[in-house]
Amino acid sequence: MPRRIASGDGKPRPATIKDVARHAGVSVATVSRILSGTYPNAPATRSKVMRAVRELDYVPNAHARGLAGVRPKSVAIVVNSVISPHYAHVAQGVHEEAARAGRLCIVGTTGGDLERELAAIQLMREEHAEAVILVGNINPDEAYRERMAGYARALAAAGSQLVLCGRPPLGPDVPAIVVEYDNTGGAFAATSHLLSAGHKRILFLGRRFGYTTPESRVAGYRAALAAHGVPHDPGLEVDGARMVRREGYRMMRERLDARPRDFTAVFAINDLIAAGAREALRERGLRIPEDVSMVGFDDLPPAADIDLTTVYIPHEELGRTAVRLALKSETPGASEHVLLGTHIVVRDSVCPNVGEASGPD
Amino acid sequence: MPRRIASGDGKPRPATIKDVARHAGVSVATVSRILSGTYPNAPATRSKVMRAVRELDYVPNAHARGLAGVRPKSVAIVVNSVISPHYAHVAQGVHEEAARAGRLCIVGTTGGDLERELAAIQLMREEHAEAVILVGNINPDEAYRERMAGYARALAAAGSQLVLCGRPPLGPDVPAIVVEYDNTGGAFAATSHLLSAGHKRILFLGRRFGYTTPESRVAGYRAALAAHGVPHDPGLEVDGARMVRREGYRMMRERLDARPRDFTAVFAINDLIAAGAREALRERGLRIPEDVSMVGFDDLPPAADIDLTTVYIPHEELGRTAVRLALKSETPGASEHVLLGTHIVVRDSVCPNVGEASGPD
Repeated sequence: MPRRIASGDGKPRPATIKDVARHAGVSVATVSRILSGTYPNAPATRSKVMRAVRELDYVPNAHARGLAGVRPKSVAIVVNSVISPHYAHVAQGVHEEAARAGRLCIVGTTGGDLERELAAIQLMREEHAEAVILVGNINPDEAYRERMAGYARALAAAGSQLVLCGRPPLGPDVPAIVVEYDNTGGAFAATSHLLSAGHKRILFLGRRFGYTTPESRVAGYRAALAAHGVPHDPGLEVDGARMVRREGYRMMRERLDARPRDFTAVFAINDLIAAGAREALRERGLRIPEDVSMVGFDDLPPAADIDLTTVYIPHEELGRTAVRLALKSETPGASEHVLLGTHIVVRDSVCPNVGEASGPD
Repeated sequence: MPRRIASGDGKPRPATIKDVARHAGVSVATVSRILSGTYPNAPATRSKVMRAVRELDYVPNAHARGLAGVRPKSVAIVVNSVISPHYAHVAQGVHEEAARAGRLCIVGTTGGDLERELAAIQLMREEHAEAVILVGNINPDEAYRERMAGYARALAAAGSQLVLCGRPPLGPDVPAIVVEYDNTGGAFAATSHLLSAGHKRILFLGRRFGYTTPESRVAGYRAALAAHGVPHDPGLEVDGARMVRREGYRMMRERLDARPRDFTAVFAINDLIAAGAREALRERGLRIPEDVSMVGFDDLPPAADIDLTTVYIPHEELGRTAVRLALKSETPGASEHVLLGTHIVVRDSVCPNVGEASGPD
């Protein structure tokens, strides 16, 4: 049974490091070194100390911190889900930088719902998080911008820095640090890669009106067509919803069912969509790249496993940068805008186009 | 510029919902309904209210909650990393159940380091998390067990429920809710699947002495060999470290370099290891399943993309169950043990074995 330490008024109080040292018959410094794992100590000393820790129910720092009402500093991150590899890698970067800075990490998920995002922001503010990092693409309407403007100022007033990560600034009413990566440039490069291999009819899988990431990638696709003098056919742009594997399967399957194949290459809006689309193509006996060339976006699993040419995004660096800039910023309402670069990763999913697409498969 | 509301002593105070209602010329009930999104209201009313919200910097509930010192209730989860698909899916289950119960989620990552895990537990305790959920396999030595015993009691004394998720109980000294899944049964089934296809020389990739998950999967593998009367050859068990893709590549490549191939099938300890091993086999011109059969474990990406037969684990249900049992438990020091089932998912990575492995490839 653990021993209770009685304080002056006879009531039990939590054990301190001094109690442990006295109980084990060693110095406070020795206890401290053993618990931090930095003491190459004799097993007998370690045993004495560990037994004292257990018998007194000692938890380091709880007593002093509890009295002082000190709460651990924290960094908050708000993401769509924790499953999608992009968000997971950004979150990993946030965690690493936060741990390096001795901060706790609070994570909220939104399922892509704006109301849940706003609710999460309020909760983080009540937690007095030092930084609130919003990750991933979004479809901001006017009402959302108005409320965000209010929340951003409230966060700043509470000493909390707002960071937009992987999405563009929300305008002068919403003071925030913005850490983005080059979506449009990456999409331009990926499309140019296909155009250079002779593909003129390129299916774009995953257009989504009003959403910041799809909009910027479609813009790069269209800009590349224009730069190469290839006519833009809106009929080659397929609308999609969430950027997940089964959505890619659905879009490709429905396209193949709806009309004879009129494209020789596919630009999938991300690697998950590419993987789903690839499954639908394989069901029809179409091989990548021999029958259909494909590029994706992200350079995340399963890109390497399906030999996919894609666009690399510095996901973890996005997360680390978001935390670093937030903690470094001296005034919580600061505005700053950083753009990280992207580049193509060439694998084996693109073949030169040696003829026009013709007729049904 | 936002307006400041002056309180009785002339100092500015945060706006309340009554201030917003007065400012917009509507009732408090109307403001409440508009902000919660449940009022199919006239655009003019909505505009008035949103403008008042913005001008007064109103943040719902902050004033009252701040005065009361009420902190949001939270659930804490401690994982190896947030990148590995298994942990990401368990964390997603935790988030969903926590959100359903109105709890915040605090996430700590450990990189597999026991010291970092113990430090994270203390931090969660100081945050007064209602539940502290430790996820994933571990290599508990005697010192770890002693310290965990102390922390488990300290958590219980602070009203915090300890949950071990995806790892076995730590003994009677460590009161905890334990939510596991059937590692050994799943490994037995996967190995039997290969044995039934005639494979007698099955390479096990990823043995790791002292780690709970690899130990239980190796146990299932060996039990299946024994049940089928196939001799156990320890030379067919390859040691590995972290269960990540490049480790699978390393193990397979080194094995193929070290000796002529003496196996016809591979049991990879998880799907990421399988994907890495597959890359090494392909580099040698070996196809799955025609030349080498393979099974994995997890049924997570990239299993479907590489047609991998594997073992399904109910990852998200693990996370949801952990939270549900923790919040339901009436005494924080409760002990409970739940085992969720696993099952084989048959795809296309196993072929019948029609001859003995012979000579180098």
